Amino acid sequence: MTLSASITGKPDRLTALAARRYRNGRSLPNHSNEALEAILSHRSVRDYLPQPVPEHIVDIAVTAAQSAPSSSNLQPWSVIAVEDSGIQDRLNAIAGNQRQIAQAPLLLIWLADLARPRSIAQGQGSNADGLDYVESFLLGIIDAALAAQNAVVALESLGLGTCYIGAIRNDPEAVSRELGLPDGVFPVFALTVGYPDPARPADVKPRLAQEAIVHRNRYDPTAHRAALDSYNRALRSFQAEQGMPCIDWTAQVSNRIGTVAALKGRHVLKDVARRLGFALK
Amino acid sequence: MTLSASITGKPDRLTALAARRYRNGRSLPNHSNEALEAILSHRSVRDYLPQPVPEHIVDIAVTAAQSAPSSSNLQPWSVIAVEDSGIQDRLNAIAGNQRQIAQAPLLLIWLADLARPRSIAQGQGSNADGLDYVESFLLGIIDAALAAQNAVVALESLGLGTCYIGAIRNDPEAVSRELGLPDGVFPVFALTVGYPDPARPADVKPRLAQEAIVHRNRYDPTAHRAALDSYNRALRSFQAEQGMPCIDWTAQVSNRIGTVAALKGRHVLKDVARRLGFALK
Repeated sequence: MTLSASITGKPDRLTALAARRYRNGRSLPNHSNEALEAILSHRSVRDYLPQPVPEHIVDIAVTAAQSAPSSSNLQPWSVIAVEDSGIQDRLNAIAGNQRQIAQAPLLLIWLADLARPRSIAQGQGSNADGLDYVESFLLGIIDAALAAQNAVVALESLGLGTCYIGAIRNDPEAVSRELGLPDGVFPVFALTVGYPDPARPADVKPRLAQEAIVHRNRYDPTAHRAALDSYNRALRSFQAEQGMPCIDWTAQVSNRIGTVAALKGRHVLKDVARRLGFALK
Repeated sequence: MTLSASITGKPDRLTALAARRYRNGRSLPNHSNEALEAILSHRSVRDYLPQPVPEHIVDIAVTAAQSAPSSSNLQPWSVIAVEDSGIQDRLNAIAGNQRQIAQAPLLLIWLADLARPRSIAQGQGSNADGLDYVESFLLGIIDAALAAQNAVVALESLGLGTCYIGAIRNDPEAVSRELGLPDGVFPVFALTVGYPDPARPADVKPRLAQEAIVHRNRYDPTAHRAALDSYNRALRSFQAEQGMPCIDWTAQVSNRIGTVAALKGRHVLKDVARRLGFALK
């Protein structure tokens, strides 16, 4: 506990949040604010109440998303708000039928959108040749991710819960057909949004110690090694509390990336992106 | 102004922030909190005071970054905190000598890091074959972006300013050499961090109207068209206020993506990523 916390008698909020995030005794200074509390309290929510997400909440989330930085202000992303249950069901089938998609009243589909800048450049008499490179694909993906994460923090600050769904990349062509995406638009991930079901609360998932992630001036390939055993233990305690099967994180990592089959169809993503209008030169 | 705002006499903060973001009269409900205010107030800061960023601020920013969602909890990213002025100078030369890099006391380099999961999987006797696909490259890039954006919101909530630097992708191999990156680690972007110089304040940059970005249930390729003229005007008024050269946004887009030369060397990024250890199958 910091000196100021012991004087005021207030709990040291950031250290309490860091304790849940790391489970390793790390303390943080007593500088909390509502933004930090929203960010550090994040947990993925997979159980939702049926009540719909009000329209004005979507407006705020999109304003937050558009407030994220954008490379050269190109704004090469779009988002589709899916509330139609038929479309949600079909997207859920593509994503392998996940309960959070079945339950969420709102599904946001985040898109790398090079069709809009291409259309604009063509309107100026340009061929938009720069869009045909891997760099421009990354530009759309990065800007969509920055935007989506701002929306997540905004939504969580308003009491809503979210969960990213990378599994729409299991079959981006089927997603593209379902949503009528033109050439040059790629579905990066979905996000389920709704009010968390208080009967089935999620908890903060522990992460690797900071020392495994942060390097100083130069990359240290050994930085993570000392953190693995204690992280395996932290994650096992989390799994036990959540009633999940207990497995070492190091084994989870190995299972998730060990084989092509574990990619669940995403090993063809390069060819799929080409068919969706990204030359990927 | 909403009813509640007119009763309390308080300014309607979200609508005031939306007015700066859109300049189109859009109102938002009176649901503000510090997280939303931090997010909606974002502006890229390119002029910094010389005072260093305290270590505890970096701790908070990294905790925020690690609190972002991570696909399958793989945590396939790292960050290098660069405070060494020699390294900063050389990275700035790669990025084309930008004043925000020259001025910022701290430069964070955000990395898609598949070397750590590969090392962990190999420790489990696995070849980590799943990492050799474009999908896994995207996974690292997306998770690095989500993490970085959480750090940006956290830093801005604490009064610091930031600016993303995509230009380190002008020559990722030189960045990799400078920072000692192993195979399978890719520098996604840098972020300048520091206390904003109050003598040279930046303003909120207007964005496209929401109607150009948000689609309902299905993508509408015509959605942006009606927004372009008013956005060109909004951005010209911003440029004039900031003493910047005035140019239509639609022309800026065309210039930025119209030619291969405008990519500033990034047209070879696919081959560069392969040389940095990403098979990109």
